[in-house]
Amino acid sequence: MIAKTFKIPYYAVVFTSLRVEDENSYSEMADSMMELAEIQPGFLGAESVRNGFGITVSYWESIAAIEKWRSHPAHLIAQERGKKNWYEKYAIRICKVESDSFFEK
Amino acid sequence: MIAKTFKIPYYAVVFTSLRVEDENSYSEMADSMMELAEIQPGFLGAESVRNGFGITVSYWESIAAIEKWRSHPAHLIAQERGKKNWYEKYAIRICKVESDSFFEK
Repeated sequence: MIAKTFKIPYYAVVFTSLRVEDENSYSEMADSMMELAEIQPGFLGAESVRNGFGITVSYWESIAAIEKWRSHPAHLIAQERGKKNWYEKYAIRICKVESDSFFEK
Repeated sequence: MIAKTFKIPYYAVVFTSLRVEDENSYSEMADSMMELAEIQPGFLGAESVRNGFGITVSYWESIAAIEKWRSHPAHLIAQERGKKNWYEKYAIRICKVESDSFFEK
C-alpha cells in the first residue's frame, strides 16, 4: 500500500477528486488505468485511497515520464470520460519529491 | 475537500499511513493536529482520506514553514504517540509543487 523508497529526487502526481454519484464503470476504468500506468516507462509506484473523496499519488522518475503518461492515447480517453461522467471536480498537482522518510514497526 | 489554488511554487507534505487495529484516541489527536496545523504560519490547506490506509496531503508556503510545524512541541508529542500507538507504518514525502491544474463541473 505504501510505495517504497526511491532515489531522490523523484516526482509525484497528486490527484485529488470528488466523484459524481453515478459511477457507471468507474472502478473498471480506474483499475485498468492503474494497471496501464504501472507498465509505463519511469513509473515507480502509487498510493491510492477513496472514501467518497479520493486521493491517488503516483511516483515517477521524471517529469518527462509523467508527460508521456498524461498523453498516452488510452489515458487521454479515460481523462475525457472522467470529465464527462465520473468527476464532479478534481485537482492534479505535479511535484518534485525533495526528501522522504519512513517508519515501520 | 479539494484544497484551493495557491501561487506556484508551493510545497506539499504527502503523509501515507497504515494504522494499527487498536486506535485509542487516534481520531481525537488527528483532528486536534489538523486544527493546530491550520493555524500555523505558512499553512495553505490540506486534503485527507482514510479507508484503513490513509493519505493526507498538506500544503505550505515554504520548506521553512514545514520544518517549523514538524518541530512544534505539540506535534512532536503527537508524532511520538503515533509511532508508539497508532501507526503500523508510514511514509512522509516533502515535495515542491511545480504545476497544478483543476477541473470543476
